[in-house]
Amino acid sequence: MAMTDRVKQILSWYGSDNPGVKANLARLMNTGTLAGTGKMVILPVDQGFEHGPARSFQPNPEGYDPEYHAQLAVDSGCNAYAAPLGFLEAVADKYAGQIPLILKLNNSDTLAKMDQPISAVTGCVKDAQRLGCVGIGYTIYPGSGQRNRMYEDLRHLIHEAKDVGLPTILWAYPRGAGLSKDGETAADVTAYAAQIAAQLGAHVIKIKPPKDHIEQAEAKKVFEKYSIPTKTLSDRVRHCVQSAFNGKRIVIFSGGEAKGTDELLAEVKEIAKGGAFGSIMGRNAFQRPRPEALKLLGDVMKIFKEA
Amino acid sequence: MAMTDRVKQILSWYGSDNPGVKANLARLMNTGTLAGTGKMVILPVDQGFEHGPARSFQPNPEGYDPEYHAQLAVDSGCNAYAAPLGFLEAVADKYAGQIPLILKLNNSDTLAKMDQPISAVTGCVKDAQRLGCVGIGYTIYPGSGQRNRMYEDLRHLIHEAKDVGLPTILWAYPRGAGLSKDGETAADVTAYAAQIAAQLGAHVIKIKPPKDHIEQAEAKKVFEKYSIPTKTLSDRVRHCVQSAFNGKRIVIFSGGEAKGTDELLAEVKEIAKGGAFGSIMGRNAFQRPRPEALKLLGDVMKIFKEA
Amino acid sequence: MAMTDRVKQILSWYGSDNPGVKANLARLMNTGTLAGTGKMVILPVDQGFEHGPARSFQPNPEGYDPEYHAQLAVDSGCNAYAAPLGFLEAVADKYAGQIPLILKLNNSDTLAKMDQPISAVTGCVKDAQRLGCVGIGYTIYPGSGQRNRMYEDLRHLIHEAKDVGLPTILWAYPRGAGLSKDGETAADVTAYAAQIAAQLGAHVIKIKPPKDHIEQAEAKKVFEKYSIPTKTLSDRVRHCVQSAFNGKRIVIFSGGEAKGTDELLAEVKEIAKGGAFGSIMGRNAFQRPRPEALKLLGDVMKIFKEA
Amino acid sequence: MAMTDRVKQILSWYGSDNPGVKANLARLMNTGTLAGTGKMVILPVDQGFEHGPARSFQPNPEGYDPEYHAQLAVDSGCNAYAAPLGFLEAVADKYAGQIPLILKLNNSDTLAKMDQPISAVTGCVKDAQRLGCVGIGYTIYPGSGQRNRMYEDLRHLIHEAKDVGLPTILWAYPRGAGLSKDGETAADVTAYAAQIAAQLGAHVIKIKPPKDHIEQAEAKKVFEKYSIPTKTLSDRVRHCVQSAFNGKRIVIFSGGEAKGTDELLAEVKEIAKGGAFGSIMGRNAFQRPRPEALKLLGDVMKIFKEA
Amino acid sequence: MAMTDRVKQILSWYGSDNPGVKANLARLMNTGTLAGTGKMVILPVDQGFEHGPARSFQPNPEGYDPEYHAQLAVDSGCNAYAAPLGFLEAVADKYAGQIPLILKLNNSDTLAKMDQPISAVTGCVKDAQRLGCVGIGYTIYPGSGQRNRMYEDLRHLIHEAKDVGLPTILWAYPRGAGLSKDGETAADVTAYAAQIAAQLGAHVIKIKPPKDHIEQAEAKKVFEKYSIPTKTLSDRVRHCVQSAFNGKRIVIFSGGEAKGTDELLAEVKEIAKGGAFGSIMGRNAFQRPRPEALKLLGDVMKIFKEA
Repeated sequence: MAMTDRVKQILSWYGSDNPGVKANLARLMNTGTLAGTGKMVILPVDQGFEHGPARSFQPNPEGYDPEYHAQLAVDSGCNAYAAPLGFLEAVADKYAGQIPLILKLNNSDTLAKMDQPISAVTGCVKDAQRLGCVGIGYTIYPGSGQRNRMYEDLRHLIHEAKDVGLPTILWAYPRGAGLSKDGETAADVTAYAAQIAAQLGAHVIKIKPPKDHIEQAEAKKVFEKYSIPTKTLSDRVRHCVQSAFNGKRIVIFSGGEAKGTDELLAEVKEIAKGGAFGSIMGRNAFQRPRPEALKLLGDVMKIFKEA
Repeated sequence: MAMTDRVKQILSWYGSDNPGVKANLARLMNTGTLAGTGKMVILPVDQGFEHGPARSFQPNPEGYDPEYHAQLAVDSGCNAYAAPLGFLEAVADKYAGQIPLILKLNNSDTLAKMDQPISAVTGCVKDAQRLGCVGIGYTIYPGSGQRNRMYEDLRHLIHEAKDVGLPTILWAYPRGAGLSKDGETAADVTAYAAQIAAQLGAHVIKIKPPKDHIEQAEAKKVFEKYSIPTKTLSDRVRHCVQSAFNGKRIVIFSGGEAKGTDELLAEVKEIAKGGAFGSIMGRNAFQRPRPEALKLLGDVMKIFKEA
Repeated sequence: MAMTDRVKQILSWYGSDNPGVKANLARLMNTGTLAGTGKMVILPVDQGFEHGPARSFQPNPEGYDPEYHAQLAVDSGCNAYAAPLGFLEAVADKYAGQIPLILKLNNSDTLAKMDQPISAVTGCVKDAQRLGCVGIGYTIYPGSGQRNRMYEDLRHLIHEAKDVGLPTILWAYPRGAGLSKDGETAADVTAYAAQIAAQLGAHVIKIKPPKDHIEQAEAKKVFEKYSIPTKTLSDRVRHCVQSAFNGKRIVIFSGGEAKGTDELLAEVKEIAKGGAFGSIMGRNAFQRPRPEALKLLGDVMKIFKEA
Repeated sequence: MAMTDRVKQILSWYGSDNPGVKANLARLMNTGTLAGTGKMVILPVDQGFEHGPARSFQPNPEGYDPEYHAQLAVDSGCNAYAAPLGFLEAVADKYAGQIPLILKLNNSDTLAKMDQPISAVTGCVKDAQRLGCVGIGYTIYPGSGQRNRMYEDLRHLIHEAKDVGLPTILWAYPRGAGLSKDGETAADVTAYAAQIAAQLGAHVIKIKPPKDHIEQAEAKKVFEKYSIPTKTLSDRVRHCVQSAFNGKRIVIFSGGEAKGTDELLAEVKEIAKGGAFGSIMGRNAFQRPRPEALKLLGDVMKIFKEA
Repeated sequence: MAMTDRVKQILSWYGSDNPGVKANLARLMNTGTLAGTGKMVILPVDQGFEHGPARSFQPNPEGYDPEYHAQLAVDSGCNAYAAPLGFLEAVADKYAGQIPLILKLNNSDTLAKMDQPISAVTGCVKDAQRLGCVGIGYTIYPGSGQRNRMYEDLRHLIHEAKDVGLPTILWAYPRGAGLSKDGETAADVTAYAAQIAAQLGAHVIKIKPPKDHIEQAEAKKVFEKYSIPTKTLSDRVRHCVQSAFNGKRIVIFSGGEAKGTDELLAEVKEIAKGGAFGSIMGRNAFQRPRPEALKLLGDVMKIFKEA
């Protein structure tokens, strides 16, 4: 398709990357219902690994089948489908060329009790290449005492991926001994996570919708001194997007736990209003019956299209 | 032998793998009494390493001799024989071409006390190739605090094995500080382990027969809300098979501790009824006198053939 | 875009390739005016290297500028643009995501006199990856005494490219001491070149329109004995396509020397009638003024669309 | 299947090879109609590359399609199917597990005029692994001035193949400036080629049926002094088999040019009588209509079964 | 220094290169008298290697000393100093940071008689890095039968250099069996050499001032048909610059043999008038007494500054 000015502008922010990385970013942005808008909705399905199969798929048992999700991503007009190695292996051949794939290169489960959270690296850049992916995915837990190992594993992967033309989509989820439970989604902490992700070289940053809470005492002083607005979700989203290189990195937001449709769409509207580049919507999509999921994803895309 | 439609169907689930991996999966499924049925019974003998020689072999002292097991696998019509490096080295030359071999690439012993369980990697993909194996075996302990090291070692092995056409048979045994003793074989945990194994890229997944127990509070809510049946073993097996990509990964069950023949066959019947692809039967086979072992394995195969 | 049945069918012929190769073949087939038809028109511009700048670009001096060709490929609705390293470096960044690129990995010039023709390898698979290409290009001269060196260099490149998900587009141009001048485009020799290219593992094969001449005495006997029709160009094209695995490899035809529009379109009609998958059209496109080139390429695409 | 004493005996001659090589030799011998007899009939189809498509496939045009040959090998009960990279890529995925594959790693065409014959290396051991092959194939031309390059390329391939458990099937075809036309199939030269192939480490040696002619003066003296019988084909075959380590290497014979059925079967009877391990039959099989080819291959197998 | 628009424009033509390559190109263009103009004068001293010491240095014996040339380059306001390994090793430490250095990675001498000219590779990219160079230099002889070896050696060097941020300055000197003596500097051949250099990925191209002669019959037709002007040196320079990607690659001209000052400056004026980006001036500079050399280089720079 012809390149829109907006996509060209976004690509211009990644000037130091080679044309291969840019071509894959362009593929990501030029696919699906939101093609050309610079906005994106990604379907991620790593919950089978992260939360277990029953919790993830029993609400809509079709989701036990890996093909269900790839087909849902195609039919709903998503920009991409992201999943761990096994789920992608199960569909990459049949869906080759139908939907941009993102290989989640690390994953965690809830069976192990780990003092400091850190996901296991469960795939490699070579896997992403042979499966025909347009990018790699990785999760960091800023706040974890295992931070260095996570950032350093990422460093190697991001470097290797850039070299062969693959951008990195980074899940930045604050978590660990350094943070209170509320702090994990605090406005200052979420924005900080976005900044860290951008500094680590991420091309697309996924964060959670920030709550109206400031976790860090030093940050609190600044938020108050300069009256940074945090009252509405769109305020907080705006601060997060600004924190990702003044909006020059693609920042998208997760929907979090499954919730009611109205509540969800209201949240997405706030996110879009705050300048977000899109949503990454897993459970809220695949745990609904397929017709409802298609409707919901379509509505979400409409919100971003009109934003 | 001519390919049956069922074997062709099973191979179609592994579309992203190269023809070498598929050819070896086909060899595994086209050998022995169950050839062509898509079902399999594998004889694994790693107990000498895992539990010590006397505990493993004194009940039937012929088992001290590595050749005993290879011959038993051949004579009983098993699909494959799986063992650690030493046991395979002792028989691979003499039995070349007689029985598909699976090299167990990591093993544990009961001498060391380890806070968080993790097996030692005791072989490599090159070993599997020079010994003429059709696949590699590996054990993970979901629930262990050493999870990441285990998954990451596996990641390298599975990648290298795929590249040279060898499928991976993954023993997924929940264990570790994250789980209660009962939790190790809980229905939710066992199904979760099957899901993790599939997401990690395993081609054949070996789990234990799940008990009627739900370990995780979050899972319990879902099992109750959606009334997932767990009362009978076949119910629980069905959930585990569904949890392995909706039955699109080969899932087989261990027999666990040695037990009486009737009890064992009753258990196998339930496993087969639940949709399992087969059994992996070690102690229950080789700790019996050879004629009884042959009879038992034959009976087990008959159950799967008729399932 | 949604996959058409025809593209799915073509991809099914490449079953042994990994999903990455298939995804890039799909991108090639799902771009431009002919997207989804399984037909393709590629713009190749290596004549600056092969014939020198004045001979190549003076007829339409805009062509001295590398951007001219990339833009022409985009605007005319071509499936891809193929060129040597320098020409692609000059446009890959600006055109990232706008047009599938094919990096020509070997090239020849007319300054050196070589007893046996062989192109120099002037790029590598890593270059293709960092430039975001969907495939690599390579030229063989069957009939050259340097055959082995050419095929062996190719073998390494094709193997490395397959591994990272890049298909190979192979220019098969018979030439060398083993052939008369007429023999270079003889029907038997051209078909033989297509067969060799397919056996070497090429995914897309580019040959010249074969003439009504049989070069090899042994082949002549067979053509006569079995009355293989060679009278019309479409007859000869049909034999070439059949010779590329019974039509199960993508075979496209070059336009050869610049010629009149009517003559050219008549030739393309015959090529399309013979079952060709498309055309690769360089000089006949870029040596015309831009409006004429756009018109011509559009007419060529129309012929293939209606074939 | 259970190992026969004959197969065990044959494997015992390859004592220094690792179990992987032996397992693949066993697979080769335990497949098809001749399974377990230690005899073998292999279908090789490299003539498209070696002689061109029309000469190879026009007599039975179904043969233009790569699947035709794989299916013919399966249906006729051949022990294996051997072909160059392209032909195997076209079928390896669909036929995975149905027929042992041998990847021909070097190939020649008749377009180039080369002073000293030498095939181009067109594949690698890694290809054989990812395609699930049971062995590699290679052609040497003893008598060529390019001998050293050929033997040395082979040395690397054979070494690498042994390491990963793949046996080597060696086509030993005397040819080159060192030999007269008659000398290429002389009894002394053919036996010498078998000896060279065995010394180079080949596991299976393919030679042409030797003629009643002695090429080398020094050899002639010995043949006469010791009255080595060469009058009948079976005499000459016996000498060749003896020359391959006193019959301790598998020696099989090609059928050569397509010929009449009676003549061919008479020749095979002589070959079998002389102690050959089997036939490799390409053109005589695939250039006949399929029913005739199946009948012929069946008759050939019957001769070897009864020998 | 602040970037001028002209330097920014030139850098924009190298969009696919990483920022490291661009930063070094910028250093090259932002040094010395011509800093910021996009023009450059480089002092190359490889004649000691290429022609022998007496021929090179006796006219001005100070030139026997490597420091003489580095100091001359600094004092005259050159953009860079280019030399083989030994000459750079002798000065790189002392002059670190004073003048951009270019390591000539291949060199030839006049002692060996070679049928087909090819320089020896005498340094590596690692050398250029440890010596603090801003780029690598390399000489190709289009027209030589050794063309492929030269281009292929270059391919590896250029790839490695780009990867670590070093641009390539390519001396393109047509020479070899394919060309007459006059042809080496023919207008068509020189322009062709510039095109080849650009296609090979060179960042800066150095060619000789072309003579009013057309070497190739096919090119002659085109020059005549389209009336490409070749009468004046500036005409011919203009064609060469156009042939290097329509002026989107930096093309500089050598002075060739030592000659009188007036003649030289007249030639430089023509070169500048034709749109050249500068001169590379060796013998004409260092074989003059230092004050004259400084005067001459200053005059040359003045010409380019005013062009």
